[in-house]
Amino acid sequence: MKMTNYQQLTRTFLRLSRFSHLSSIASWDMFAMMPPGGSQARGEALAEMSVLTHQILTDKQVGQWIDGAEQENLNDVERANLQEIKRHYEQASLLPEALVEAKSLAGSRCEHAWRTQRPNNDWEGFSQNLKEVVKLSREEAKLRAEAKGCSRYDALLDIFEPQMTSARLDALFADLKSWLPDLLARATEKQAQRTLIAPEGPFPTATQRELGLEAMKMLGFDFNGGRLDVSAHPFCGGVPEDVRITTRYNENELFSALFGVIHETGHARYEQNLPREWPGQPVQLARSTAIHESQSLFFEMQLGRSEAFLTRLLPHIVQRFGDQPAFAPENYVAWNQRVKPGYIRVDADEVSYPAHVVLRYEIERALIDGDIEVEDIPTLWDEKMQAWLGLSTKGNYRDGCMQDIHWTDGGFGYFPSYTLGAMYAAQLFHAARAALPQLNADIAQGDFSALFDWLRQNIWQHGSRFSTSQLITNATGEDLSARYFRAHLEARYL
Amino acid sequence: MKMTNYQQLTRTFLRLSRFSHLSSIASWDMFAMMPPGGSQARGEALAEMSVLTHQILTDKQVGQWIDGAEQENLNDVERANLQEIKRHYEQASLLPEALVEAKSLAGSRCEHAWRTQRPNNDWEGFSQNLKEVVKLSREEAKLRAEAKGCSRYDALLDIFEPQMTSARLDALFADLKSWLPDLLARATEKQAQRTLIAPEGPFPTATQRELGLEAMKMLGFDFNGGRLDVSAHPFCGGVPEDVRITTRYNENELFSALFGVIHETGHARYEQNLPREWPGQPVQLARSTAIHESQSLFFEMQLGRSEAFLTRLLPHIVQRFGDQPAFAPENYVAWNQRVKPGYIRVDADEVSYPAHVVLRYEIERALIDGDIEVEDIPTLWDEKMQAWLGLSTKGNYRDGCMQDIHWTDGGFGYFPSYTLGAMYAAQLFHAARAALPQLNADIAQGDFSALFDWLRQNIWQHGSRFSTSQLITNATGEDLSARYFRAHLEARYL
Repeated sequence: MKMTNYQQLTRTFLRLSRFSHLSSIASWDMFAMMPPGGSQARGEALAEMSVLTHQILTDKQVGQWIDGAEQENLNDVERANLQEIKRHYEQASLLPEALVEAKSLAGSRCEHAWRTQRPNNDWEGFSQNLKEVVKLSREEAKLRAEAKGCSRYDALLDIFEPQMTSARLDALFADLKSWLPDLLARATEKQAQRTLIAPEGPFPTATQRELGLEAMKMLGFDFNGGRLDVSAHPFCGGVPEDVRITTRYNENELFSALFGVIHETGHARYEQNLPREWPGQPVQLARSTAIHESQSLFFEMQLGRSEAFLTRLLPHIVQRFGDQPAFAPENYVAWNQRVKPGYIRVDADEVSYPAHVVLRYEIERALIDGDIEVEDIPTLWDEKMQAWLGLSTKGNYRDGCMQDIHWTDGGFGYFPSYTLGAMYAAQLFHAARAALPQLNADIAQGDFSALFDWLRQNIWQHGSRFSTSQLITNATGEDLSARYFRAHLEARYL
Repeated sequence: MKMTNYQQLTRTFLRLSRFSHLSSIASWDMFAMMPPGGSQARGEALAEMSVLTHQILTDKQVGQWIDGAEQENLNDVERANLQEIKRHYEQASLLPEALVEAKSLAGSRCEHAWRTQRPNNDWEGFSQNLKEVVKLSREEAKLRAEAKGCSRYDALLDIFEPQMTSARLDALFADLKSWLPDLLARATEKQAQRTLIAPEGPFPTATQRELGLEAMKMLGFDFNGGRLDVSAHPFCGGVPEDVRITTRYNENELFSALFGVIHETGHARYEQNLPREWPGQPVQLARSTAIHESQSLFFEMQLGRSEAFLTRLLPHIVQRFGDQPAFAPENYVAWNQRVKPGYIRVDADEVSYPAHVVLRYEIERALIDGDIEVEDIPTLWDEKMQAWLGLSTKGNYRDGCMQDIHWTDGGFGYFPSYTLGAMYAAQLFHAARAALPQLNADIAQGDFSALFDWLRQNIWQHGSRFSTSQLITNATGEDLSARYFRAHLEARYL
């Protein structure tokens, strides 16, 4: 029996997804388990795999199958899948194999060295590796931009957030900039009027881990298909059948790891609840990085730092660490809704968070478009950090431009996803609340089932069946708007 | 510049070794980290990879390159490498791709189910999966036997221990059988004359782990290129640059995990000290499974349970667990040199260990040659266990034929390696002692450098440059003989 073109494609993508499974687990291992000596061999192995998958994906026959499949009789899901297949094929075909391999190797090298360079505040050493990554990312952006007929940075943006442009981002961020600094100032001023009691540690790592696992359980994480581990930079990795989230512990600080875990649990539940009916097919993958971040921020910010949820969580905290003045309910809630501009993005409150993103967005766009060079980053970082949050990072690379790992492996174009995600999250939570009048009472009773069902039905189960615009319009009645995010911040902080 | 045939081959094998890197790490993860829900997807991913590497390895062009390279001007190492390449090519070419994939899938399934079936003593369920594995292994053996012109079991034996035959094994094991039962009886009788004080637990897992790490450090394990973790069945995995050893802890029992760790450290040091000059080439892989086991048993039995080493280890034990009557030096040494026939192979003393191996060898040979069926295993197991060690496993599958995982993924032909390894280890230690007159004094002072240098020079650094016979003859002056093992057992136990 002759296979149709579409069947040939699904077989090829099933095969690719299995190879991607091995790369995902080996990457997770690289961050969470691997001793330093394994670095070079691991980098080479992952690069070899990226070359192989690039070869399979860009085989001319795949292009012919796509052309053939477009003439075949497909149902809606198959058509959506074919569209995603085409997107992946076109994105990959633009890049020569040597560039794919070089990017993979340079990324592994840069990330690996960063692990020791960051604690040593070694910008000199780090920038050498980063230059190579930037050079390769610019080559990539150039090739993509020529093919798509857009700016270089827009061509990278499109990988993470299909159909997003810097023009649209500029408009969204201009909107933000028009009200956020004022909101930030007012929230800070309001909070300055009361003195909060800080939690007193130490909070032993093992107990923090237990609390994190407890929170994951409350939030429906499926431990039969996932794990919690430690890495220098927290992330959610693995595969939908086996989702690996990580955090990092500081024994003097209780809530950083905890809300990190809640954040990653949002990513994880999205992955764990993606559709499984079309094994290995792109249509069952997460829609985009911004939608992914919307789920983590839905969990961490919309739900996790709401008074109702915080109240629900409190007894678990007291049970494990004993009571102390900082855990008096009012103080504890206020502590976890503090607005306190700081150096570190992943520890930022949701009011100052967009500053971290807009800053990186402006720098990475200029870097990719060739308007600045790697050497210019620290100065620009310092200027923007001063302007937004009044903080100096002069000479403090470790808490400045060396704090993240996104750029180390050439992930330029990713950062905007965080603030897009925050906006999507607010818009989704608004819609969920409208659909579920009992929501606050449910949360106070620790019953999140209706909320998660709403997410499952409106976001998780759709994978990549719809464009981001369609998905968000179907779920909330309109396309992305910054006004729900603004309303949320005003309601919580003013 | 045109590549030579030999260069084409080295490029291909470098590529294969990188894919094998990913499979090795994903396999380690499967045993040490993966939650149950990841099992099916992992099994499919590993099977897809085994199909890919089979395709690459058995490509007709590889055969042509081998023919071409045989005419090229190669140095000794290259010639040895070519010979190993040819062996891998021929072994792989014999098997159809569908069988490779089916074996990989059936193996993952059987191993995964075993994890819950073993604690439940569920022979019924386990044997269903095992039958499929046996069926596929028989198919494999048949194809290999026809090509090699040997018996089916011998064809499998050759994968693990090139040039070993069951005729030679029968002779070696007949030798063993002629003196071992008597030696076992005399050793048991001698030891029965004194009453030993058993160590009293509990021994907390975390402290046992610290002690294991301490022992690994004493024994030169390179933590920059490896880790210690936990798995249901201890093993040494990963890649030479990043060796992953595992153990399992029982809080009532102190020495099982500790000597397990010492055993795996022997495997690990072999891997960590293999040559690295020929990246990805088969010539730099470990020589054979029996030589591998000789290294682990060298560490665990020859060195680890010697009075000198035990004495050196004792202060670390007392420091971590406090003193107790069982740790009085004489009692402690005698306790760790006890001869006490038991059900579990991996916990067996070195005198009764060969019984476990000969038993499995006889059963697996009959199974592969088609003389018995899976249903016959428990009865045969019980009979042989009664005959050798006077223990009944009737109805106790968990501590009988379900205790190991070698058969679950079709590793028939592996078990003899353990007793061959014990013989090699004794022969090597005898030679090392002859070469190093200061050895006992060195060990007593915790200085193992001369001993490890001897192993490095005589075994580790050679990878697969020589045949097992050559390697052992170069190192010890003669080919494998059981008499050093006998002399060792008599000296230690009679």
